[in-house]
Amino acid sequence: MIERAVILSTGDEITSGKVVDSNSNYIADRLNEIGVDLVSVITVGDVPERLEWAWRTAMQMADVVISTGGIGPTADDLTTETIARITGKQLWRDEPSVEHMQRLFAALGRPMPENNLKQALFPETAEVIQNPLGTAPGFRMAVEQATHTSHLVVMPGVPREMKPMLEQQVIPWLRSQRGSGKIFATRIFQTFGISESGLDEAVAGLIRPQEAKVGFRASFPQISLKIMVEDYPGEAEKRLAELSERVRDRVGSYIYAEGDSTMEEVVAELLTQKQLKLAVAESCTGGLIGHRLTNVPGSSAFFVGDFVTYSNEMKCELLGVSRNTLREYGAVSEQCVLEMAAGARARAGADVAVATSGVAGPEGGTPEHPVGTVCLALVADGVKAARRHQMRGARDWIKLLTSQVALDWLRRHALGLPVGESALFRR
Amino acid sequence: MIERAVILSTGDEITSGKVVDSNSNYIADRLNEIGVDLVSVITVGDVPERLEWAWRTAMQMADVVISTGGIGPTADDLTTETIARITGKQLWRDEPSVEHMQRLFAALGRPMPENNLKQALFPETAEVIQNPLGTAPGFRMAVEQATHTSHLVVMPGVPREMKPMLEQQVIPWLRSQRGSGKIFATRIFQTFGISESGLDEAVAGLIRPQEAKVGFRASFPQISLKIMVEDYPGEAEKRLAELSERVRDRVGSYIYAEGDSTMEEVVAELLTQKQLKLAVAESCTGGLIGHRLTNVPGSSAFFVGDFVTYSNEMKCELLGVSRNTLREYGAVSEQCVLEMAAGARARAGADVAVATSGVAGPEGGTPEHPVGTVCLALVADGVKAARRHQMRGARDWIKLLTSQVALDWLRRHALGLPVGESALFRR
Repeated sequence: MIERAVILSTGDEITSGKVVDSNSNYIADRLNEIGVDLVSVITVGDVPERLEWAWRTAMQMADVVISTGGIGPTADDLTTETIARITGKQLWRDEPSVEHMQRLFAALGRPMPENNLKQALFPETAEVIQNPLGTAPGFRMAVEQATHTSHLVVMPGVPREMKPMLEQQVIPWLRSQRGSGKIFATRIFQTFGISESGLDEAVAGLIRPQEAKVGFRASFPQISLKIMVEDYPGEAEKRLAELSERVRDRVGSYIYAEGDSTMEEVVAELLTQKQLKLAVAESCTGGLIGHRLTNVPGSSAFFVGDFVTYSNEMKCELLGVSRNTLREYGAVSEQCVLEMAAGARARAGADVAVATSGVAGPEGGTPEHPVGTVCLALVADGVKAARRHQMRGARDWIKLLTSQVALDWLRRHALGLPVGESALFRR
Repeated sequence: MIERAVILSTGDEITSGKVVDSNSNYIADRLNEIGVDLVSVITVGDVPERLEWAWRTAMQMADVVISTGGIGPTADDLTTETIARITGKQLWRDEPSVEHMQRLFAALGRPMPENNLKQALFPETAEVIQNPLGTAPGFRMAVEQATHTSHLVVMPGVPREMKPMLEQQVIPWLRSQRGSGKIFATRIFQTFGISESGLDEAVAGLIRPQEAKVGFRASFPQISLKIMVEDYPGEAEKRLAELSERVRDRVGSYIYAEGDSTMEEVVAELLTQKQLKLAVAESCTGGLIGHRLTNVPGSSAFFVGDFVTYSNEMKCELLGVSRNTLREYGAVSEQCVLEMAAGARARAGADVAVATSGVAGPEGGTPEHPVGTVCLALVADGVKAARRHQMRGARDWIKLLTSQVALDWLRRHALGLPVGESALFRR
C-alpha cells in the first residue's frame, strides 16, 4: 500500500543553479492528483556519499521514492550503482535494452559508444521501464525496510523522456498499488473572466468533498479548475460526467476549454471552423495578439494581418481613424478603437476585427487616463462592441490581460455569444 | 568559515505541485557564484514533524541553512516556531518590525490584522533581516552543532521579497563569512550569434582557471558568459577589468550587453539615443518583434508601427510588394523581404525598417523552402541588407530565433556595424 512518497532529484546542474528542477513540480502535481502524500523533495549533486545519504533517507521515509536523473552514460551518472551498493544487489545487463539502444543509434547513422552499455545495467530484482524516446531505460524495484517496503522508481532527468514514462508507466502502476481497486477520473476546465475566489465560491455549493477533490491553479491571466473523482471503474467516470455537467451549468460562460488547450488555440480552431477571416489592430498590446495567434500552427487559415499602429499618425494613415476623433476623445477611447477595428477590417477584407488601445505604463498615465486604462473593440458584420477597462499591474501584465480579453471576445463572437458586456473579472 | 550550504524550501504549495520552486534555483546560482558548496535542497510541506526533521537534518549537514517560506501571518506558517522549539530558544517581539508593518498597512489605508504580529516574533539570539518590500522580516542566527556552527538564514517565500533580501543582505554577509578576506567580482556578458561550445573555445585560451571562474548559461536564443574573480579588494576588480577587456577583444562582436539587459532593451536604448524611428514588417514572426520591443517602457519614442502581413495579399496591398516578385521568387525570398522592409519604411515614414518572412512550421514546408527557411531584410538610408537562413526547431523557436536575428541586425545598424553578413551561429 503506497501512501507516502519522496522525490529525489539529482544532478550537479541543479545544485549549481544552472537548471531549474521542473521535473519535481510536474511529479508533485501528479502525485497530489492521485492522492499520494509527498513527504519531501530531496535534491543532491552527483557526489557518491550525498547520493547514498539521499537514497537511504528517502527509502526510510517513503513507500515510494521517485528519482530523476543520474542514469546517463557518463562517469558522473551514479544512480544505478548507488542503489546497487546500498541494497547489496549485483548489476545485470538487460539485453533487450542493449538492442533498443543499438536501434536508436543505427537510426541516427552513428556507432553506439561503449559507454552507453552502462545504461543497460540494472540491480538484480529490478524491473526495467521502457524509454521509447531515449537511450536510458528506467527501472523499478522493491526494497524491504525495517517498518515498510519502499518501492524505488528510477527515471531519466530529461523532461521529454521522463514525462511520458511517468504518465504511461509509473502513474498507472502507482494507482494500482494504492490498493483500493479504485481509479481516478480527472477533468480540467480552463476559465477566464472569473477570479479564483469567485470560482471557488461558485463551485463550493456544487460539489461536496466526498464526491470529488477540487483544485484550482492560477496562471495569469487564466484559472484552471480540476475535478478529481476517486471511485471504482465505471462509477468514477459516471460521477465525473455528472459533476462536470453541474460545473458547466453554473460557470459555463467562463469556461473557454476543457483539457489543456490555450485561449489562442481555441480561438484559432473556432475561426478556422467558422471560416471567419480575422484582422487585428493593436496599439498598447504592440503585436502580442498577433504573436499569440500565430503561435498556433495553421493560423494562416484565418489570420490575415495585424496593424500595430503605435503612433497616432499611423492610426490615421493606416487605419483611417479620423483626426477629429483623436482630438476630441484621444487615442485611448471607445471611439478610437472602434474606428481602428473598422479600418483594419476594411483594409484587410476580413470578416471580423479586434482593436486595442491603452496606457500600459509605467509612464504615460494622466489623471484622465491613468496607467492601466485600456479600450477594446470588436467589429464584424452587424456587430460593433467597445469597452473601457481599468486594469492594474505591471506593463507586461496589462499587455497580456488585454490580449486575453481580445481573444475571449473573438471566442465569444465566433460562438454567437455577446461580447464586450461582461465585467473584466467577476469575483 | 562557511563552506557547505543546504537550501530548505517549505510550503504545501510546493509539495502539492501547485507552484514551481524557482527560489531554490536562484539561490543555488548565487551560492555557486561565491563558491559555497550546495550539499542539498530539501523541500517539505507545512507539517510540523517534517519541518522539524528537515531543519535538524540541514543543520547537521551544513554550515549555513538558507530557508524560504513559512514566515507568513497564518497558522500554517511554522518556520519560526519550529526553529525556536528545536534550538530551545524563547520567542521575543521586535518592536521596530511591528512599527514597520504598521507603516505598511497605514500606507494601504487598512488596519493591521492581529495575526501579523506573529511576523515580528523571533528566536532569542536571532538578528532581524529587514524586508523593505513586505511585512515578513527575515532573520539569521547561529546554532552550535556537535562538529560545527550552523548559521540559519530565514527569508520569505515570495520571490520579489526574497531576491532583494538575498542580494543586499545575505550574499554580502556570506561573502564576509568565507573568511579569506577575499571578495568576488563578477561580470556577465550577453551574447548572440555564437554557440556555447564556440564561446567556450574562444574564451578557453584567454582565461586561465587560476585567474577566474568562467560560467556559461544558455537561455535560447542567447548565451551568457559570466566571469568571476575571487581576490582581495582592489585586486579582484582590477583583474576582472583586464579579463573583460580580453573577452571584448576576442568575442566583442557577439556581445550585445554587459549585465542583465535583454536584446530588446539594448535595441530600444540605441534607437532612442540615435533618434532613429523604426517600422517593422512581419510575416512568419507574426507580431513577436513588435511585442518584444513594446515590452520596453518608453518604446513609443522610436517604435512607429508594425505591419504583420500574414497573407500575400496584405504584403502587396499594404506594403507594396510587387505581384511579380511573389510570382517569381515567392513570399519567402530576399526579394520579398526587401520590398516588405522598403514598403514599411515608406508607409510609416521611418528611418529604418526590418522585415521577416519564412516557414515556421510544422506544416507548410516544401522541398525548395523546408520548414525553418527564413528570410530577413533591413532597409535604411543607403542600406539594403537581406539574407536567407535555414533554422531548425519547433515553431516557437523559429519565431523566437528569427525575432532575435532581426533585433540583432537593428542593434548592429544603430552601432554602424555591418548587418546581414554573419553566419547565424558561429561554432
